[in-house]
Amino acid sequence: MIAVLKPGVTLDERNKLTQWLEHQGVEVHVSEWKSKTILGLIGDTHKIDDELLSVLDIVESVNRISEPYKNVNRKFHQEDTIITVGDVKIGGGNFCVIAGPCSIESEEQIITVAKQIKEAGAHMLRGGAFKPRTSPYDFQGMQSDGLKLLVQAKKETGLPIITEIMSTEHLDLFDEVDIIQVGARNMQNFELLKALGKTKKPILLKRGLASTIKEFLMSAEYIIAGGNKDIILCERGIRTFETYTRNTLDLSAIPLLHELSHLPIVVDPSHATGIRSLVKPMSMAAVAAGTDGLMIEVHNDPKNALCDGPQSLTPEEFADAMVSINKVRAAVI
Amino acid sequence: MIAVLKPGVTLDERNKLTQWLEHQGVEVHVSEWKSKTILGLIGDTHKIDDELLSVLDIVESVNRISEPYKNVNRKFHQEDTIITVGDVKIGGGNFCVIAGPCSIESEEQIITVAKQIKEAGAHMLRGGAFKPRTSPYDFQGMQSDGLKLLVQAKKETGLPIITEIMSTEHLDLFDEVDIIQVGARNMQNFELLKALGKTKKPILLKRGLASTIKEFLMSAEYIIAGGNKDIILCERGIRTFETYTRNTLDLSAIPLLHELSHLPIVVDPSHATGIRSLVKPMSMAAVAAGTDGLMIEVHNDPKNALCDGPQSLTPEEFADAMVSINKVRAAVI
Amino acid sequence: MIAVLKPGVTLDERNKLTQWLEHQGVEVHVSEWKSKTILGLIGDTHKIDDELLSVLDIVESVNRISEPYKNVNRKFHQEDTIITVGDVKIGGGNFCVIAGPCSIESEEQIITVAKQIKEAGAHMLRGGAFKPRTSPYDFQGMQSDGLKLLVQAKKETGLPIITEIMSTEHLDLFDEVDIIQVGARNMQNFELLKALGKTKKPILLKRGLASTIKEFLMSAEYIIAGGNKDIILCERGIRTFETYTRNTLDLSAIPLLHELSHLPIVVDPSHATGIRSLVKPMSMAAVAAGTDGLMIEVHNDPKNALCDGPQSLTPEEFADAMVSINKVRAAVI
Amino acid sequence: MIAVLKPGVTLDERNKLTQWLEHQGVEVHVSEWKSKTILGLIGDTHKIDDELLSVLDIVESVNRISEPYKNVNRKFHQEDTIITVGDVKIGGGNFCVIAGPCSIESEEQIITVAKQIKEAGAHMLRGGAFKPRTSPYDFQGMQSDGLKLLVQAKKETGLPIITEIMSTEHLDLFDEVDIIQVGARNMQNFELLKALGKTKKPILLKRGLASTIKEFLMSAEYIIAGGNKDIILCERGIRTFETYTRNTLDLSAIPLLHELSHLPIVVDPSHATGIRSLVKPMSMAAVAAGTDGLMIEVHNDPKNALCDGPQSLTPEEFADAMVSINKVRAAVI
Repeated sequence: MIAVLKPGVTLDERNKLTQWLEHQGVEVHVSEWKSKTILGLIGDTHKIDDELLSVLDIVESVNRISEPYKNVNRKFHQEDTIITVGDVKIGGGNFCVIAGPCSIESEEQIITVAKQIKEAGAHMLRGGAFKPRTSPYDFQGMQSDGLKLLVQAKKETGLPIITEIMSTEHLDLFDEVDIIQVGARNMQNFELLKALGKTKKPILLKRGLASTIKEFLMSAEYIIAGGNKDIILCERGIRTFETYTRNTLDLSAIPLLHELSHLPIVVDPSHATGIRSLVKPMSMAAVAAGTDGLMIEVHNDPKNALCDGPQSLTPEEFADAMVSINKVRAAVI
Repeated sequence: MIAVLKPGVTLDERNKLTQWLEHQGVEVHVSEWKSKTILGLIGDTHKIDDELLSVLDIVESVNRISEPYKNVNRKFHQEDTIITVGDVKIGGGNFCVIAGPCSIESEEQIITVAKQIKEAGAHMLRGGAFKPRTSPYDFQGMQSDGLKLLVQAKKETGLPIITEIMSTEHLDLFDEVDIIQVGARNMQNFELLKALGKTKKPILLKRGLASTIKEFLMSAEYIIAGGNKDIILCERGIRTFETYTRNTLDLSAIPLLHELSHLPIVVDPSHATGIRSLVKPMSMAAVAAGTDGLMIEVHNDPKNALCDGPQSLTPEEFADAMVSINKVRAAVI
Repeated sequence: MIAVLKPGVTLDERNKLTQWLEHQGVEVHVSEWKSKTILGLIGDTHKIDDELLSVLDIVESVNRISEPYKNVNRKFHQEDTIITVGDVKIGGGNFCVIAGPCSIESEEQIITVAKQIKEAGAHMLRGGAFKPRTSPYDFQGMQSDGLKLLVQAKKETGLPIITEIMSTEHLDLFDEVDIIQVGARNMQNFELLKALGKTKKPILLKRGLASTIKEFLMSAEYIIAGGNKDIILCERGIRTFETYTRNTLDLSAIPLLHELSHLPIVVDPSHATGIRSLVKPMSMAAVAAGTDGLMIEVHNDPKNALCDGPQSLTPEEFADAMVSINKVRAAVI
Repeated sequence: MIAVLKPGVTLDERNKLTQWLEHQGVEVHVSEWKSKTILGLIGDTHKIDDELLSVLDIVESVNRISEPYKNVNRKFHQEDTIITVGDVKIGGGNFCVIAGPCSIESEEQIITVAKQIKEAGAHMLRGGAFKPRTSPYDFQGMQSDGLKLLVQAKKETGLPIITEIMSTEHLDLFDEVDIIQVGARNMQNFELLKALGKTKKPILLKRGLASTIKEFLMSAEYIIAGGNKDIILCERGIRTFETYTRNTLDLSAIPLLHELSHLPIVVDPSHATGIRSLVKPMSMAAVAAGTDGLMIEVHNDPKNALCDGPQSLTPEEFADAMVSINKVRAAVI
């Protein structure tokens, strides 16, 4: 970390700052170039609050040379983290496809879809029980009843299950869930992240709509700082000026996150694009870019159903996409 | 609401959809223009889930003519909502300045600042006890101890107090707080919004970093749908590509929200800009644009303190800003 | 196109508008639903200026059902456009890799790189002679001297060449250039687009940093409206809030543009990411998503050179990337 | 400027770089902190191409301490630049309102509007002759005929005139124009900026839709580097995710640009918001924030006209806005 001091800082002011920094466990090297004084901070600088430092009256600017995240950082943990759920592994060369409907609607629906996606080669079942909706008047999900149906589908198919949590108060309901999902809108719900850091279940953390790669990793750091190391990062599109697609899928996040962190990465092309015809090509692109997994929305009967999303594939479309996904996967490993 | 059907839709498919829509309480008018069939939905369309509708295989596009929010909508509630807290009123022509430190640090600090801002003309005291921080290693606030100090400052000065909540689990601690703040990162923490909808305290709802005006109003609608009508909207800057300022303060939101909603609006120029020298001119601009209030960060001794934000004014700077703010206010009312 | 009229519009006002619209060659269908009057415009609506229409005092909102672009629209031109330059074809199933240095620096440099990329399997040579630079003090390119060196490299290797134009006044200098590139900053330099519409050379049009898919296609429509049908669309990243990568590469633009238009699409992963290690995985991803071509920066000696970009590959890295690119290509066709 | 070298750089590599930097006229100070080597560059660093520097294999990161712009920088030119056009002054405490229609449509229209805005207190007349339109099928302006009408309006009213240029080839037509406007889409049309740097007319430079403050100032630096010091900066809204307003007006740019540069600043609330009812409050806010001028769209008869923009005020609305604008202006000077 480099801090540039303002011109005219007195020796006394500088010493006061230096002592405060050393007190926090970093070594301080001072360089003077004409009117500029530059402090180089060496050591465990992730504990230094750079926003706090940059606000001081005597400080002109602060630049991190090393990253503010530590436990999720590949520099300090070279090997890929591998998440194991039943027979399924994610990360470290293991590829995993998660599929299922946006919302759990009925026993018949979730079990039928579960069987169909398993048949097509999916490794895990997703389904929303608690649904974050922009409008209070929109369907909020089947909630705890939905969770029970999801568990039933797990029992019938053997597929591990993943579903979203929206409040720490619901944590008890997630006992039989294999992976807990944190949605994009809750990526910086820090109290939720702290609570999940104390659980023993793997967490799939979705990138916030307007979150930078650095903020994304810092939110993962919240979970790991609480003691839970089993985190999957999920890129699901960011908010930009473009309105044709629901969000802009940032596939460069895949190789970038692989460089910066040892955590596995999953891509959700369904929510990112919001357009059914883009799901298959974006899935293939994500695989070519090195993703460790995909999360794809599949609905068993979108033609007749009245509450399916525009981005859901039919089971047939999903089976077709899986063929292409597997071809690309075979070409890149 | 207008739904355009795809070419080739059968009469049977169309009737099925029409009946489903009528079942939800809206009237459906059908127009046919060559290959296009257009459904006009009249009535209580805010209950129609437009995302759900637009996904149907037979639907080409859906456009709302009326807004999806109802209770916060000025169309259905012409008079300005006025929030009353002790002697202080916000909205309906009543102007209110909220000031105080980013974080509560000590009894001396919060009480000194409280007295100084009151002296300068502020109407309410702010101070953070629970702090949402990007890094788990940064200071997380004094938490419940901080709340107690804030309540003490209220007693000593008579100023009503406002502070941020981060979890439904902390709600009991907010008994003596006058206004509960929901931070930008929690604007779409729907479980928190639902819980606050059941309280009887006024809520100051900050706009999310990447939230549209429509989403902002929908989040307010969540609170009001729970029964709590006392909501203050707070514009605090949105995330854009510009990096010079921390965020981009969207002052056009003031007259726009006044047109669309009856709720009072407060502007936070400190967090929006992140730059001390911009706080005063942006406060003046917000007042000229018709804001009902301002929320300004003030720290009693930023020169010596080590944890003050770059955007905090000194009490002297705040007093100076208040003079200019009041001049602009006098010119525009 | 659907125009919703404001409540209270008189019959006289409505007739005046209807006549004006019919005068512009569209058919107008009027529907009345309670207080709402809705005009459906049928026919050649791309000539209707929707901004102009939406501003009328009696009009509440305007929505296009059909797209404002016509000549670039796949609806009116089902078959893929194929661009032919010498032996090289782009589009319609033909895949093309364009490579070369950011700037032409010397005869030796451009000829050496040209030979190396040809050896590795590239089909076309790129090199900047006129360079758009943010600062007037930065290197502006070798200009007409650079063009001569590029032409020389074409003669020595037989590779067709592509380079950027920055002003209509330079058009005469581009006689021996095979494809003229319009840079992202000039995507809406309409006078330049009009001039290029009158040339007979293929144009590679880069998407503007903050341009929507619709605006991108409208700029292509400017060229085609002038008479030049040979246009290649180039996705090169859009500006978002993320700062880790230079821009955010929007790969969903590939399948989307293929749906909307018959024009071929090329992706530039070098400028989009600005990071060398991301060029290969993003190239592979673009191919998996169905791109018709790639444009990759390659520099012959970045280790010693002082003016190479951080995103340039060495010839060795490029040759390695080509192997992976071809594997993915083989898997998806 | 600070350059951090990568770990493991040899002394030989470092010396080579140091010599190259010194050769470009800057002093280099070397500091070593454990594995990090840091170069401090002192002197005329705006000539150093930081993109070029950051790409070197041995360089880890580059940070400017001083700005890359020089001639527009207030650090090197303390006094405000004042632009004088006839009797009108802009900058240095002089306030100027520019008004007029989006497009020049007829002799009667432009002269009527000119008289009306003069009557209401405007200081300068605007009117578009060359119109940048997204669609090639939309009205492109009256071009040279429009310019003649604008000059005629100048003669009849005595108001100085300002209008937009779209190509260097039209420069001869602008002889009687007082201020030449560069539109947002051409802010980085560097060939146009270079040509305008050689003229003797004041230039009003609009900020690009996706341009940072730094890029905006660098484009002004292009003009000033050519010899033309008379530049007015115009904030006209930036492109963000918000779709309610056409763009997001960034009013914090006013005090920020005043800190960074000595050039005068004008705000265009009409194009920024695209909504008529927001023009007056945003004008008032801009004045409160310290703008040196406003540019407002006024149309003489929007009720009957068919090509007026949704953001145009009527002359009556403009006169009413001027009263409020002047009140705020009186309160802040």
